[in-house]
Amino acid sequence: MSSAAPRLRFRDTQIEMAHGAGGKASRRLVEGLIAPLLMNGSAAEPLTDAAHVAVNGVPIALTADSFVVKPLRFPGGSIGDLAVNGTLNDLAVSGARAEALLVTYVIEAGLPVAELEQEVRAMAAAAASARVAIVGGDTKVVEHGKADRLYITTAGIGRPIPGLALSAKSVRPGDAVILSGPVGDHGITILLARGELDLAAELSSDTRAVLPFIEAMAAAAGPGIRWMRDPTRGGVATSLNELARDSGLGVVLQEAQIPVRDSVRGACELLGLDPLHIANEGQFLAVVAPEYADGALAALHAAGCEDAAMIGEMRDQPSGTVLGVTSYGGTRVIDMLVGDPLPRIC
Amino acid sequence: MSSAAPRLRFRDTQIEMAHGAGGKASRRLVEGLIAPLLMNGSAAEPLTDAAHVAVNGVPIALTADSFVVKPLRFPGGSIGDLAVNGTLNDLAVSGARAEALLVTYVIEAGLPVAELEQEVRAMAAAAASARVAIVGGDTKVVEHGKADRLYITTAGIGRPIPGLALSAKSVRPGDAVILSGPVGDHGITILLARGELDLAAELSSDTRAVLPFIEAMAAAAGPGIRWMRDPTRGGVATSLNELARDSGLGVVLQEAQIPVRDSVRGACELLGLDPLHIANEGQFLAVVAPEYADGALAALHAAGCEDAAMIGEMRDQPSGTVLGVTSYGGTRVIDMLVGDPLPRIC
Repeated sequence: MSSAAPRLRFRDTQIEMAHGAGGKASRRLVEGLIAPLLMNGSAAEPLTDAAHVAVNGVPIALTADSFVVKPLRFPGGSIGDLAVNGTLNDLAVSGARAEALLVTYVIEAGLPVAELEQEVRAMAAAAASARVAIVGGDTKVVEHGKADRLYITTAGIGRPIPGLALSAKSVRPGDAVILSGPVGDHGITILLARGELDLAAELSSDTRAVLPFIEAMAAAAGPGIRWMRDPTRGGVATSLNELARDSGLGVVLQEAQIPVRDSVRGACELLGLDPLHIANEGQFLAVVAPEYADGALAALHAAGCEDAAMIGEMRDQPSGTVLGVTSYGGTRVIDMLVGDPLPRIC
Repeated sequence: MSSAAPRLRFRDTQIEMAHGAGGKASRRLVEGLIAPLLMNGSAAEPLTDAAHVAVNGVPIALTADSFVVKPLRFPGGSIGDLAVNGTLNDLAVSGARAEALLVTYVIEAGLPVAELEQEVRAMAAAAASARVAIVGGDTKVVEHGKADRLYITTAGIGRPIPGLALSAKSVRPGDAVILSGPVGDHGITILLARGELDLAAELSSDTRAVLPFIEAMAAAAGPGIRWMRDPTRGGVATSLNELARDSGLGVVLQEAQIPVRDSVRGACELLGLDPLHIANEGQFLAVVAPEYADGALAALHAAGCEDAAMIGEMRDQPSGTVLGVTSYGGTRVIDMLVGDPLPRIC
């Protein structure tokens, strides 16, 4: 242990569900306890998306995520799809193309092998579709009652996509904020799939690999792309609050421009949730220099993100804050997710 | 999904604890179901130790392991130590030096933060002691009753140690089998730490990073080192059975030469266990060409593995089998671990 012990700012005494929800409590846990101890507080954006390191002088991107989604299967996908696509997407929004994946399983004793096989097949299919090799991993089994059927962890390595240089620090006032498609599909799908609510909707998860869209956008507007993020846990609101904080700028959203399906909006209204706090598994946010914004958007439309939209812009003020402008011209502060309205979404 | 679906040989209908124990059932699950689907059956040694891949032409070693040991803390270490040392050791015995680690946590809601902090500190200390950076990760929380306090997954990337070329295929009759130190300390320590047996012993886990010893051995005998493995789950017997199978040769062990502490031997006798099936977390096996064997052993002794021993040799016959020669001259077949006498050992 290092003798100069880092000072810890995390004062909670017990881990709660909110610490895993991707919002404020998660940030406090990671930035107040885990990152200062594990990483000497040196990482500017600790434990999010992918890390970029050099091995023998070659730049490599690295990321790992654990998946504990409940239920294992849901309209549009399953834990196996998420575990592959989620890690590929973390690499993609960091500006890297995945080269290899590792997979570990923690399995609850008593799980029917057919269910495991279904998820292994889903992972194989997702990896094949992204042309990424799964090169190794591990399997552990715990007693019945010591896991919830199946947890999967994936780690990925990738190499940087040439011509992309991403950093919140490079974001400038006037830059455009682009969103790849409708928000909230994944989180609301999971919520409905649990069957605990008297609600139904024609909706499925947006789980997919976003690299093809990012490569199309990079080909059209690479030098203008300053920052990207996949708005998973905590949703678009949390990702943009992190951007506001890390860039020191304000984000002003035109709320009418944000694509939201009627079914997602309806479920959110009934449940008192903000669609901007709901997790997505196949969308990404990009901040693009104004002169490249139209080209980036056109490239996304042409590549198949037909609902991609310019949803706002970066401003000098209000620094560190996300503002929403309603269609009536009113404004509201859009905060990070607080608490955990939707546990175990990924 | 690939249209040419691989044929699966795994016929069990339900996952049992034995499928995670590292012995025969684990092999069947990995080789009969997971590897054929995920890796198209292409990997010669699927899902064990580290994979070696090339990224932009640069050779990289990759590995990932999940840790579910129970209890979290035990004499000599904790889950945090294991999670770092285990992944470093998988890289080391594949002939690679770790460069960076990723860490993911699955935490049971209600875990006291002090316990989490203890493990994060243990990981930081183990990584610092091995001079390896932890560069990222993830944190998930599941409901109380959906995990057993804390599961940790680590993924590591490393670069090959120059001058080492390891493969079971390069092993030759007459090669020496070297073991770095006493067997069974970790597994028996865990068993006793659970307090379910009316047994006590002065014993602690052997968890440690083995790279310094491997580097010392490589400096003295690099060209003669043909194969290495860390005998964790399933113990020395399982690792050597894998070697026998993968090399097509026989392994003949002089049982009197295998270092076993009296306390481990005593506990095993009482419990009807074979010390060669018990997990180790700080030992490794090496197969070394005969002309390099004395030098390799002397280097290990000098580096601090004072109990390292030459425990046997490779023979043409009996092909694919591990034989033990007792001090009375009798022989027995030493099989892989069957069943799961010691669940959740790592």
